[in-house]
Amino acid sequence: MDTTPVWFMRQAGRSLPEYRALRDRHGILDICRTPELAAEVTMQPVRRLGVDAAILFSDIVVPLEPMGVELAIVPGVGPVIDSPVRSRRAVDALRPLVPEEGVPYVLEAVRGLASTIDVPLIGFGGAPFTLASYLVEGGPSKNHSRTKAFMYAEPAAWQVLMERLGESVLAYLRAQVKAGAAAVQLFDSWVGELSSEDFRSYVLPSVGRIFDGLADLDVPRIYFGVGTGELLGDMAETGPDVVGVDWRVPLDEAGVRTGPNVALQGNLDPALCLAPWEVIEPRAREVLGRAPGTGHIFNLGHGVLPETDPGVLGRLVELVHREGAVDGDG
Amino acid sequence: MDTTPVWFMRQAGRSLPEYRALRDRHGILDICRTPELAAEVTMQPVRRLGVDAAILFSDIVVPLEPMGVELAIVPGVGPVIDSPVRSRRAVDALRPLVPEEGVPYVLEAVRGLASTIDVPLIGFGGAPFTLASYLVEGGPSKNHSRTKAFMYAEPAAWQVLMERLGESVLAYLRAQVKAGAAAVQLFDSWVGELSSEDFRSYVLPSVGRIFDGLADLDVPRIYFGVGTGELLGDMAETGPDVVGVDWRVPLDEAGVRTGPNVALQGNLDPALCLAPWEVIEPRAREVLGRAPGTGHIFNLGHGVLPETDPGVLGRLVELVHREGAVDGDG
Repeated sequence: MDTTPVWFMRQAGRSLPEYRALRDRHGILDICRTPELAAEVTMQPVRRLGVDAAILFSDIVVPLEPMGVELAIVPGVGPVIDSPVRSRRAVDALRPLVPEEGVPYVLEAVRGLASTIDVPLIGFGGAPFTLASYLVEGGPSKNHSRTKAFMYAEPAAWQVLMERLGESVLAYLRAQVKAGAAAVQLFDSWVGELSSEDFRSYVLPSVGRIFDGLADLDVPRIYFGVGTGELLGDMAETGPDVVGVDWRVPLDEAGVRTGPNVALQGNLDPALCLAPWEVIEPRAREVLGRAPGTGHIFNLGHGVLPETDPGVLGRLVELVHREGAVDGDG
Repeated sequence: MDTTPVWFMRQAGRSLPEYRALRDRHGILDICRTPELAAEVTMQPVRRLGVDAAILFSDIVVPLEPMGVELAIVPGVGPVIDSPVRSRRAVDALRPLVPEEGVPYVLEAVRGLASTIDVPLIGFGGAPFTLASYLVEGGPSKNHSRTKAFMYAEPAAWQVLMERLGESVLAYLRAQVKAGAAAVQLFDSWVGELSSEDFRSYVLPSVGRIFDGLADLDVPRIYFGVGTGELLGDMAETGPDVVGVDWRVPLDEAGVRTGPNVALQGNLDPALCLAPWEVIEPRAREVLGRAPGTGHIFNLGHGVLPETDPGVLGRLVELVHREGAVDGDG
């Protein structure tokens, strides 16, 4: 590629009418578990928007069920776990994920996509802290206080939880790469709730082992979170190739924090996509202009909002391709 | 005072059994609008915890109703606005707050408290961005995208909204000080959703006018938000005496960002109060140890969580009084 590559987190999903039409007939978990449907939804934004990568359509809780966790995705709420994990006993009861047995439909979707699409497919997995937060809270949470309370009160059980989730996520991402994914993104959506001190004590080692464990596969490894301004240096230290940055930290400043060893992904505010184009355009140019020399993948700072006009995303792709760095890192 | 002063955001409220007993019989807005009840709830944590300040028990939406906004506080949801403010016409329809006419019960509660308690009473008001977010969203929001969309799409109407809210909040806080409040805190709970660029363009001027407009009253002015690591310097620039810091930024680093003109308030993670005391104690000492030379008020980085054991808060007060700076700023 001879310019800055661009894709959008949640580029597949609720902002696209073709996705909503499909959702009229199928639940989210049904789509995730049906290879043809997952592949179709993954492809929709590639067809419509001209993005430079597809990302596997899935939900971060998908690998939890074969680990022994009963769950549902409740409309208007999100993932809900029947029996939250709040004890050493519950942690010990989690089974290690064997992807070929536990999530064969995911690997089938990846294989199907990898053999048909002409852009790289990004594999998808939740990071240990964010997965643990769903397990401990039992569902979405405003402040993740139960998760932190468990982490502080039972550090030994917490460490086992991080290790077990980390090993399973590593197996999950390795299996996706072996099935044809050309890159992987580890989603740590809620890790920005932690201070740097807590991240380093309670989370960093398990994330580091995931990136280490992917190194031999030689695919780009992206680590993403929200509200992580104070964690960017710590996140770079876990060993990814790319760190995702939300809209709060300008990319040039983010580059100072992450240092010379990683590229950056981001970081237009998703809410800006709801603005008139004349407001969006200079801000998108500013993102391009602030990208550091270590490499840049243009993206939003978090997922596409459901109320986004897909036409705006298409215009952003054109803008980035026209005005991105001539020797982008893609 | 000869050591670091300490109080807790949301020290009154759901963590206290005496508050929950009162809530069995009264709604939140009833309490806010009944001077005796508001005063009683304000006093409860002073009696129980030995904190160095009371903060007026209220809700940030209380002054919106006399501005012409129909609202309710829905249990499990939060404030809900009947007709969200999403047009220039709706902005123009907001009436300026005249505190003596619109919220006489608040001023009566303040007068009653000021004449009876032996700790300073902190006045309470929501900042323009956070109030606007309730008005535009129509209720609590995960990402405040409608608010930002309105701000980007209708900058002129947004400016009028910020001015009108700012003038009303200024009048509200001035009236509380004249009724006996010894300090004021401006709550900008959601402003951390904005980048520095947006904060400076869309919010900073209105906040600056509030602090300017309070200057002649010669009481400490505190400006608080969450997730504001990238905004701390901008927040200091609006002219408060104290900037509140959440748990993500260590106080010594926060002091570098806010500069030499403001004291800091914070910043123990509220979730840490759910941990065993042996985990809490060194972290509280660390907060004290990192406080900058410009002055420090010990507090949590956000409000007390409902599930907090009040006994832990009492122990924190003792610790801070015993080990705080000998020449604290209080």
